[in-house]
Amino acid sequence: MVDQGRPVRVHVAANPASQLASEFTEARIRASAPPGVALSFGASPADLAEAEVLLLTGQMPLDDLDRRAPKLRWISYTSAGVEWLLKLALPPRITLTNASGTHAPKAAEFTLTAVLMLNTHLPYLLTQARAHRWAPRAGGTVAGKTVLILGMGALGGAAATALARQGMRVIGNSHSGRPHSAVSVMTLGDGFRAFLPEADFLVIALPLTQETAGLIGRAELDLLPPHAGVVNIGRGEILDAGALAAKLTEGSLAGAVLDALPQEPLPPDSPLWDTPNLVITPHCGLYDPTAYGQRCLEQFFANLHRFRNGAALEQVVEPARGY
Amino acid sequence: MVDQGRPVRVHVAANPASQLASEFTEARIRASAPPGVALSFGASPADLAEAEVLLLTGQMPLDDLDRRAPKLRWISYTSAGVEWLLKLALPPRITLTNASGTHAPKAAEFTLTAVLMLNTHLPYLLTQARAHRWAPRAGGTVAGKTVLILGMGALGGAAATALARQGMRVIGNSHSGRPHSAVSVMTLGDGFRAFLPEADFLVIALPLTQETAGLIGRAELDLLPPHAGVVNIGRGEILDAGALAAKLTEGSLAGAVLDALPQEPLPPDSPLWDTPNLVITPHCGLYDPTAYGQRCLEQFFANLHRFRNGAALEQVVEPARGY
Repeated sequence: MVDQGRPVRVHVAANPASQLASEFTEARIRASAPPGVALSFGASPADLAEAEVLLLTGQMPLDDLDRRAPKLRWISYTSAGVEWLLKLALPPRITLTNASGTHAPKAAEFTLTAVLMLNTHLPYLLTQARAHRWAPRAGGTVAGKTVLILGMGALGGAAATALARQGMRVIGNSHSGRPHSAVSVMTLGDGFRAFLPEADFLVIALPLTQETAGLIGRAELDLLPPHAGVVNIGRGEILDAGALAAKLTEGSLAGAVLDALPQEPLPPDSPLWDTPNLVITPHCGLYDPTAYGQRCLEQFFANLHRFRNGAALEQVVEPARGY
Repeated sequence: MVDQGRPVRVHVAANPASQLASEFTEARIRASAPPGVALSFGASPADLAEAEVLLLTGQMPLDDLDRRAPKLRWISYTSAGVEWLLKLALPPRITLTNASGTHAPKAAEFTLTAVLMLNTHLPYLLTQARAHRWAPRAGGTVAGKTVLILGMGALGGAAATALARQGMRVIGNSHSGRPHSAVSVMTLGDGFRAFLPEADFLVIALPLTQETAGLIGRAELDLLPPHAGVVNIGRGEILDAGALAAKLTEGSLAGAVLDALPQEPLPPDSPLWDTPNLVITPHCGLYDPTAYGQRCLEQFFANLHRFRNGAALEQVVEPARGY
């Protein structure tokens, strides 16, 4: 329980190299903060000496927190993917929360866009168009087709709802196996493999953990029917992009839309740029500049209210689970 | 009134060069036909001598019908765009019907796909990706944004419903001005121009007529805000593609998805293939090979039942209106 009589010391550190830094300006945060919060700003390691709470945007050096941040008890990270923070082995007194859920409406729309593009053969048509070839290819609507969604957290769940609204059959896969109103069949753990042969579309919406790294390789892709399409809105390391590219090139898979790549930014000489029937979006598909920063700050200050009242924080990352 | 005692003579002519010819094979049509229909097949001008009804797929020579087809009273055309048939000045005894509506579910999905792609900056991201450039660009979801749909027939109406379901504000424009449940504001004739400055997206779903040819030129495109995107699912001649390309190149318009082009097939040396922020689909976006042929034949045989019973045909083209 924090003494409510004195202000809580919140430090805000935005890595200026992060594309999200402009969302968390000093002016915006000061305007959003309630009374009783002592705010400080800066990305220097020395800034953390007095902080109880760290609001963190983008990746930055956070080593030696035992010595540098003796009063720190909570890090609120403004993105969803915390794999790099977990590698730091934070002192147990520090709770880590992330921005799980703030991307959900945009994730739903982006996934819908990607699945509809695959259904309309857009990756193929775009590849033909690059070669100035008029090569019509048509198919039926998505209604009744099957999409398998790996990862049924805030993002995968929102995507499931959007796809089910188009009349699709949604098969889910999650750690918990908890039912979801938009999902016909919920699979657990490895159970998703049995459904790969009937998936018209595979959507990866998983966090990067020890269990998910390299989860989808050549063997899994080979279980998909050749007309299938793949979407990755999770992390690049989950999908073997080389195996995917090989299958797209040989025509044993119809198309893919990747918003998460094995290397980001993808270097100009990556062969992925010229892989046929592959659409690459530069990790911007889930970001909504009109809503994301505001939603993050609302979530953070709601959590800060809980923190000051000794209540349980929300969006807590479980290090053992990895997200 | 046709004498129900004798079979009605229906000739089926499929232009073998049409991409739709395979939908209307002799076997399929014979299997769908009710009793009391004398079917003949062939694309030779001599075939029409005895026909009362012509089921027509694709464009083919239909001159001199006065002499060649003295008994013909009805041409059922299996596509929506009949501008070339109206140019032939059919004898007044011949009623023309088209396949209006058979494309509606796919048209709705394709238009939704195109608008979502524009909203996600896909045409821009794809242009950057062709140059191997990682150049993130993000925006908000489509909810609350405005789409102006020109043409509220079967295709535009179905698109309006799909877009309104995503929370969009839909402004319609039609000849009749008839209200539509998905449309907030219905404009008539030139009334759409006043709404161009507030359109985030412009969708062209018009038939080609004397009134719509060249309707959207530089002046109209200049009224759109620079962040707007344009979709054409109507006919290429309605939109000045050169003016569109100029605006896309200079950056005064954000993107476009064209399924209808000024020349089809678009020749390999057309500068449109390399126009930045332009997605070209080769007039296949509205075609659903899993449903279209069946829907067309159901529509045709339902109309044939009306024809034999002297009832009014549906999907009748009004030559004066042009669709």
